Amino acid sequence: MNIIGKPLNRVDAYDKVTGKAKYTPDLVSPHALHAKVLHSTIANGWVKEFDLSEAWKVEGVVDIVTCFDVPDIQFPTAGHPWSTEPKHQDIADRKLLNARVRCYADDIAAVVAETEIAAEVAVRKIKVTYEEYTPILSIEDAMKEGATVIHEEKPNNVVVHSSYEIGSFEEAIKEKGLIKVVGDYETPIVTHCHIEPANSFAYMEDGKIVVVSSTQIPHIVRRVCSQALGVGFGTIRIVKPYIGGGFGNKQDALTEPLNAYLTTRVGGRPVRLAYTREETFACTRTRHAMKFHIESYIRPDGSFAARSIEAYSNQGAYASHAHALVANSVNGFRMMYPVGAIKGEAYTVYTNMPTAGAMRAYGIPQIGFALEAHVDDIVAKTGFDSIKIRKQNMMKLGFVDPVTTITCHSTGLEECIDKGEKYLSYTKKRKEYEKQDGPIRRGVGMAIFCYKTGVYPISLETSAVRMLLNQDGSLQVQMGATEIGQGADTVFAMMAAETVGLTMDKIHMVSKQDTDVTPYDTGAYASRQSYVSGLALKKTAETFKKKLLEFAGFMLKCDPWDLDIKENYIVHTNKDERLLSVAEVALESCYSMTNSQHISAEETHHCTDNTYSFGVCFVEVEVDIPMCQVKVLDIINVHDSGTILNHQTARGQVHGGMSMGLGYGLYERHLFDPKTGRMYNDNLLDYKLMTALDTPDLHADFVETYDPTGPYGNKSLGEPPTIPVAPAIRNAVLNATGVAINAIPLHPQRLFGAFTDAGLIK
Amino acid sequence: MNIIGKPLNRVDAYDKVTGKAKYTPDLVSPHALHAKVLHSTIANGWVKEFDLSEAWKVEGVVDIVTCFDVPDIQFPTAGHPWSTEPKHQDIADRKLLNARVRCYADDIAAVVAETEIAAEVAVRKIKVTYEEYTPILSIEDAMKEGATVIHEEKPNNVVVHSSYEIGSFEEAIKEKGLIKVVGDYETPIVTHCHIEPANSFAYMEDGKIVVVSSTQIPHIVRRVCSQALGVGFGTIRIVKPYIGGGFGNKQDALTEPLNAYLTTRVGGRPVRLAYTREETFACTRTRHAMKFHIESYIRPDGSFAARSIEAYSNQGAYASHAHALVANSVNGFRMMYPVGAIKGEAYTVYTNMPTAGAMRAYGIPQIGFALEAHVDDIVAKTGFDSIKIRKQNMMKLGFVDPVTTITCHSTGLEECIDKGEKYLSYTKKRKEYEKQDGPIRRGVGMAIFCYKTGVYPISLETSAVRMLLNQDGSLQVQMGATEIGQGADTVFAMMAAETVGLTMDKIHMVSKQDTDVTPYDTGAYASRQSYVSGLALKKTAETFKKKLLEFAGFMLKCDPWDLDIKENYIVHTNKDERLLSVAEVALESCYSMTNSQHISAEETHHCTDNTYSFGVCFVEVEVDIPMCQVKVLDIINVHDSGTILNHQTARGQVHGGMSMGLGYGLYERHLFDPKTGRMYNDNLLDYKLMTALDTPDLHADFVETYDPTGPYGNKSLGEPPTIPVAPAIRNAVLNATGVAINAIPLHPQRLFGAFTDAGLIK
Repeated sequence: MNIIGKPLNRVDAYDKVTGKAKYTPDLVSPHALHAKVLHSTIANGWVKEFDLSEAWKVEGVVDIVTCFDVPDIQFPTAGHPWSTEPKHQDIADRKLLNARVRCYADDIAAVVAETEIAAEVAVRKIKVTYEEYTPILSIEDAMKEGATVIHEEKPNNVVVHSSYEIGSFEEAIKEKGLIKVVGDYETPIVTHCHIEPANSFAYMEDGKIVVVSSTQIPHIVRRVCSQALGVGFGTIRIVKPYIGGGFGNKQDALTEPLNAYLTTRVGGRPVRLAYTREETFACTRTRHAMKFHIESYIRPDGSFAARSIEAYSNQGAYASHAHALVANSVNGFRMMYPVGAIKGEAYTVYTNMPTAGAMRAYGIPQIGFALEAHVDDIVAKTGFDSIKIRKQNMMKLGFVDPVTTITCHSTGLEECIDKGEKYLSYTKKRKEYEKQDGPIRRGVGMAIFCYKTGVYPISLETSAVRMLLNQDGSLQVQMGATEIGQGADTVFAMMAAETVGLTMDKIHMVSKQDTDVTPYDTGAYASRQSYVSGLALKKTAETFKKKLLEFAGFMLKCDPWDLDIKENYIVHTNKDERLLSVAEVALESCYSMTNSQHISAEETHHCTDNTYSFGVCFVEVEVDIPMCQVKVLDIINVHDSGTILNHQTARGQVHGGMSMGLGYGLYERHLFDPKTGRMYNDNLLDYKLMTALDTPDLHADFVETYDPTGPYGNKSLGEPPTIPVAPAIRNAVLNATGVAINAIPLHPQRLFGAFTDAGLIK
Repeated sequence: MNIIGKPLNRVDAYDKVTGKAKYTPDLVSPHALHAKVLHSTIANGWVKEFDLSEAWKVEGVVDIVTCFDVPDIQFPTAGHPWSTEPKHQDIADRKLLNARVRCYADDIAAVVAETEIAAEVAVRKIKVTYEEYTPILSIEDAMKEGATVIHEEKPNNVVVHSSYEIGSFEEAIKEKGLIKVVGDYETPIVTHCHIEPANSFAYMEDGKIVVVSSTQIPHIVRRVCSQALGVGFGTIRIVKPYIGGGFGNKQDALTEPLNAYLTTRVGGRPVRLAYTREETFACTRTRHAMKFHIESYIRPDGSFAARSIEAYSNQGAYASHAHALVANSVNGFRMMYPVGAIKGEAYTVYTNMPTAGAMRAYGIPQIGFALEAHVDDIVAKTGFDSIKIRKQNMMKLGFVDPVTTITCHSTGLEECIDKGEKYLSYTKKRKEYEKQDGPIRRGVGMAIFCYKTGVYPISLETSAVRMLLNQDGSLQVQMGATEIGQGADTVFAMMAAETVGLTMDKIHMVSKQDTDVTPYDTGAYASRQSYVSGLALKKTAETFKKKLLEFAGFMLKCDPWDLDIKENYIVHTNKDERLLSVAEVALESCYSMTNSQHISAEETHHCTDNTYSFGVCFVEVEVDIPMCQVKVLDIINVHDSGTILNHQTARGQVHGGMSMGLGYGLYERHLFDPKTGRMYNDNLLDYKLMTALDTPDLHADFVETYDPTGPYGNKSLGEPPTIPVAPAIRNAVLNATGVAINAIPLHPQRLFGAFTDAGLIK
């Protein structure tokens, strides 16, 4: 390959660095109205009445809409492709504004005003009368007999309960000589912390409602808005410019449905609905807090005989992506070590907490922490070698998951482990660090993961791409797949250049999606785009190239089958002599007096394949026991994501994911008032996101396999880097101190408790 | 046909009436810089030097660029498709700013500033030193031996000289008994008077120069900008929103090339270049003033034995569309009465007048006036019946033009004449009015015309269209053809509904063109779109329908060939029972778990056909001889434009064209200072455009033929209505007064001279 694999600069680097790149706020009409949402000050109950009299008096107020005014339609918000089968459809459990309050800061009314300040002032002047119930914040409380019902459709507050069993667990554990290890693990509520808060801008034009939004999934948001308002898909138009990050939060309809409705209330005038950072924290989506109970039965040779998991996921107030995440967790539990009898059971439970949704790696960081902590707990109990036991039991090439049928078409996991081990001298240090005393101790830890590439066959994988020849022989590439900061446009441009035979400067990505004209794609999630949309792109590029060569053949009076394109020139297949430039073909195809052809191609790829990415994290920490501090001294992630499409941007992806993993393991969590359910730390001062000063040097390496199902041998890379970091740190702390801490983050309070219990602090 | 022909409301009516429709000024970034052009205060000469010192002192000035700074590239501006053959290419005779000044108000420098006022003030503070020559304002002066050369490439100031001869003119006039009639006719400089002045807005993004512009021809403007700046087509992006009229003025690159350059000077910051009404009058394009010398030889039976024409077209300072217009005039002369021997000769001549370009009906109103005045001069001299002589000699069905090969595939001209005659009781009144005296007299007049539909085979006719299925079964139609106020989107929507089998509410026109993603089409001119782009639309709609039925066949497990679409439902061909809704097909095609297909179609039509539209104007006037006033008492246009696609919008087209024809015949002309060449009446107070008070009731009628080459039997209608009005009025004045006036407009000064010469005023 000529271009794939090169460490090229991002195609959007210049515009982003110079401020030319347009984001949603840059596109807001200067005459836009401003909307503000009134959020409830209770977490559980009913809105009984509003007193709007003072609010209406605020100068500049154009409209006030309450939960009693909005259409009586329940709609789903999750960023999943729709299904025509009702049982596969997302749960429609919220209205545009809700009279039944289900979390603190639920959306109950909105003001539209000429200025942002007027809207803000008016919102504060709305008086609300509630009927209030005790907030249910924990899974345990929600599942209690007689608990207040949060959604009447789910009388026991369980959104979904699912289970599977591979082999017979009960039979398997009867085997003689098995060692049983049991553990309970817990992960916190954290959030995405994308730079650009949730915001959109809506207006009416051409008989349509247009919503310009910071979203990962314009085509899905179009469908959600049409469902929420009860209008046809074709009357909604979503425009997605550049966005300042999403990490899964924007894989959900956030401000768009309400904003689409608000503009219809004011005669189609433009309305801006921009959430503050505080609202983005408290009123969008979070990562699901989960609890896991794991039991393992190990044979004396280190092989797993039987494993079981029970998982509980705190959904919060509304379903959003609902059970898909914890299902992914318990599936990941099965796939990573697919040996012996395995059973899993999972619950997704409504509570009065903020709604949890998609977040980078979608349930796998949770199970990744639990499972890899548990493996080191097995190691601690059995004395097996921590690397050997993993290698022995982990997924191997050719594995077919018995539930999903997802197949391991390629794996470099063993080499990833070896690279990481070698980098850190893990085995040597691990032994060395096992017997320390003193207040400051060192430890090494590691964790592995597998991650599937896209969502097939659990859900639909489909993508369409269009290519359009410019008259100078350059190429427009128009995709429903979205650039969300991850570098998608750059690798798509490389793919297009590679397959058509052009140089990179000839590729123009149409970065902005506009559902009126952009080919359908479900969007950026599941690390699917370079694989699924990449396949659609490759298919389209091949069709496009064929059409281009047909016209070149017409010009050259030769069989197009004999022609190829190399570096912007038409050549005989396998020869280098330049017969014609693509620019000449383009000019003639447009302006031929006898045979003009405006060469374009548009193809759908209905993807019916999937594969696994793999990787490891190796980390060395220093634990200050009296200060209850963990310092990361060295850390490396090694990934098998198949062919690395662009080493520069891939490294960026890994660094970002590692940073998120470090925060997950060490600092990040949301804190809530246990009485009201109000989020305490809904800002970037109190929510402890990793800063540059907190971050050690991040090391990234790759083991490049060639996956036969990927368009260019590539597999998912976007989400995986965040997965193995937290368990690796936890395992390093265990190595350093002998203390197994089964919940994250490893903040000082938690360490103080654990070290105190272990007798390290007296 | 179910939809074609219905008098439906315009699809953009609601948005235009409510102010929701977006025009270029609505899209200007609030932080845009403002550009102003410095126009020369001489008409002929050289800029020797600028003193910019005072201009630079104006606060807010960001850049000043002069004719000495711009790229040394000459480029063409005409809205023609490009040709890869140099001899068919438009004349590249101007730079972005010109040191060689060729007309009063030529573009010589520009200022970019933070505010419009700062730009305006700075422009006024620029001091210019000129070398000045005597302005050449007339064709006669320009063609004089030793005249100053305006463009060095054309040392005799003749842009192009062309001629043709059908049969042998010299042989033909030897025939015995021929009556010779000679006449000289003259038409004035007039302008388009579109509501929205020339304006654009340029910035850089994604490595491209983006120009949002009020243009009829976005794809051509893209090419012109790339030529003017010497950069690849693919690095220019033109966006065309709704526009407030064009009438041919915006079938030229106007502000766009300079604005594209200006944004590159300021690091890609957005720059607005909005011409005032005065600049739009004086610095964009005008209708060519032409002079004609016609000789006719008529047999005693009224048939034409030989005809000749000599035509001179005043091009003004730059070539723009150049000779294409007067060539169209002398071709029209030949086509209208294609009998006997015919010869034509035409000159397009550079002068120091404002640049003439395209304007509604492109040379045909000029020849229409001369020719139809001349036919009534023949009638006056010979006593033949004015209708009979026309019917006898005019183009008939099956006519093939010997020069262009354009064929008459349909004609309703004879019925048009009969309808108009009957409406006005023309023959009866004509006789009655022949012998009046007294100061106030009445007269009737008529004129006929033919007009070709599109530019094939003189130039390239090509169009591409894309259709995209929405998930609710509605349809996006994306075309390079442009809505310029003429109602194109409405008839295209009707065509799409008709051919696919949907109702009108299911058709969503993507009205805005964006050369990055919009299929190629040369744009709105030559009354080509409903014919040429209509054919491309029909072809695309058929492909789209085929794909839709294929998917429906897959769902219904039957042969798609047996299926059809009627009013949004899939039916068995020729049956009415509804098998499935298109919405169901759309939903399944998007979300099928086994066979998702994002149904779209994109087709090019390379058009190799053309045909003629026809029509007449009949008018009755009252002439106040002492006051030298002409009042129109009754007027009707009757058109054969094939199938009328939408009777309501067609009627609007005819009314608009008639209004323009009335102005052309009675009021409109530009006046110039004979010493400097400065336009006197560059505003809507002094330029006498028809107002509502000046306008009589306008009557429009149609004779519907079915043209076999049109997509739905339709032929051109956009430009024709303006053609026959002025000669019909002139002929009515002749009928009323016996005075043949061979120049328009028939303003009081002209009538005073003519009536005085004729002895009617003493």
